[in-house]
Amino acid sequence: MTDITKPCIILVRPQLAENIGMTARAMMNCNLENLRLVSPKESPVSAKALAASSGADEILQNAKIYNSLADAVADLQCVYATTARRRNQIKAIYTAESVMTPINQNLKNHNRCGILFGPERTGLENDDVAIADAIIEIPLNPKHCSLNLSQAVLLVGYEWYKTQIQTADYQFITNATHPASKEQLFAFFNFLEQELSDFKNLKDNEKRPTLLRNLHNIFNRSQLTEQDINTLYGIIKYLADK
Amino acid sequence: MTDITKPCIILVRPQLAENIGMTARAMMNCNLENLRLVSPKESPVSAKALAASSGADEILQNAKIYNSLADAVADLQCVYATTARRRNQIKAIYTAESVMTPINQNLKNHNRCGILFGPERTGLENDDVAIADAIIEIPLNPKHCSLNLSQAVLLVGYEWYKTQIQTADYQFITNATHPASKEQLFAFFNFLEQELSDFKNLKDNEKRPTLLRNLHNIFNRSQLTEQDINTLYGIIKYLADK
Repeated sequence: MTDITKPCIILVRPQLAENIGMTARAMMNCNLENLRLVSPKESPVSAKALAASSGADEILQNAKIYNSLADAVADLQCVYATTARRRNQIKAIYTAESVMTPINQNLKNHNRCGILFGPERTGLENDDVAIADAIIEIPLNPKHCSLNLSQAVLLVGYEWYKTQIQTADYQFITNATHPASKEQLFAFFNFLEQELSDFKNLKDNEKRPTLLRNLHNIFNRSQLTEQDINTLYGIIKYLADK
Repeated sequence: MTDITKPCIILVRPQLAENIGMTARAMMNCNLENLRLVSPKESPVSAKALAASSGADEILQNAKIYNSLADAVADLQCVYATTARRRNQIKAIYTAESVMTPINQNLKNHNRCGILFGPERTGLENDDVAIADAIIEIPLNPKHCSLNLSQAVLLVGYEWYKTQIQTADYQFITNATHPASKEQLFAFFNFLEQELSDFKNLKDNEKRPTLLRNLHNIFNRSQLTEQDINTLYGIIKYLADK
C-alpha cells in the first residue's frame, strides 16, 4: 500500500462499472486513495467507470484487483465490514462516525486498515463479514436504509475525512471589511437619533426609550460591519435630504 | 408544510430528473419528507425521477413546485444555503454538522426551516445565497469537492438524521448467548491447564507463568461468550482424546 495513513476501500464483488467509478469519485471527495476490488464484474478502467468517476481516474488506474477477499485483506491488520442488516454473528458494531476512533488509532499504530463494502443487491455475505474485526453500521432510517454502493462509501469516507481536518463550526465571513466596533455602532445610533429628532414617537417621552431600544436591537442583531454602517449612513442621509 | 418538525429540502432549478429522484431517495434514507422544487427542468413524477427514487414515490408525488425561490421560501422563517465555493457575501458559515444546532433550535421554536441546493453544474447563484440566513459548507477535499446533487442532500440529511436518533457508538452483539463471566473463564482456564498438564513448556517452572499469562490474554482479548466457551471445551476435549 502506498499510504498506510489512510484506510483502503475494498469493494467485494461489485456488479456495475458506474458504481466503481462513483466510488472512486466519492473517495476523491474524501481524500482517500487506495481502492481494492474483489472479483469485480466490470473493469475499474472501463469507459463507464472512468466516465462515472468525474476525474478520479488515478484512483481507478491504481485500483488493485483480487480473486478472493482473503487475498484482498492479506496484508492488512484491521478489517471493518459495512452492513445494512444485522448478522447472526458475535461481533462488535460501530457507527460510521464512532469507528473512526479505532481506525485512526490503528493507523497511528502503523496497522493497515481496510473497509469492506458488499455487492449492490445483496451486501456482504456472512462469510465476508466473519473475516472482519468489527461491523460498521451507517445510521439511517431503518425503514429505508438501502444506499447506492458509492453513497455508502461517501458517508463512511466523509466521516473519516471529518476526523482529518479542523473546520470551524461557525465562521462569520466579512471579506475585506470588519465587524463594527461598539464605538462605531454608538456613533451610528447617535447619528440616527439626530436624523430622527423630529420623528413623532421619538419626541414622545413615554415611547422614546422603547423605540430607541428596538432600533438598537434591530441593528445589533444584524452583526453590522464597518462597510454596512457606511451603507446605512448613506441611505439615511439620502432619505433625510429628500 | 405537513411537518414543521423537519427541515424541507429545496432544489433550486434542478436540471435532471434522475437527480430529483435520487434526492427523494436520499431524503427517505434520512427520514426527511418535504421536497420543494424551484423551476425544475423535468417533472418530479416523470418516469426517470420515479425510477431513480427507489421507492421514494411519495416524496416525489408530494413535492411542491414554485416559479421562484422567493415563492418557495415565502412561508419559512429560516433558510440555509449549501455552497461549495466561497461567495463574496458577509454571512455566517456553518458546517453540515454544526448547522444542525441552529436548525433544530429553530424547529423547536416552531420556525420552519428550508435548506437550498443549487443546480447541478453551477450551484446557487449569488442572489439565491443572499436570500439565505446562513451558508452550509460540507467539509470535503477542497481539491475535489464537487458532489452529485443527491449526494449533497444525502450528506446534509445524514447529519440531520444523526441528531434525531440515539445510536450506541459501540455495541457488542452476542445474540442468544451472553458474555462469559470471569468465573466461567477461570473454570475454562483451569480445564485448559489440566488438559495441558503434560505439555513440556507448562512443566518448565521458568516458562510456565508466562505461558499461562499469554494463554489467559489470548482468550481475554477474545471477549468470549458462554457459547464460545462451550465451543472451546468441545474442541479441546476432542484434541485431548485424539
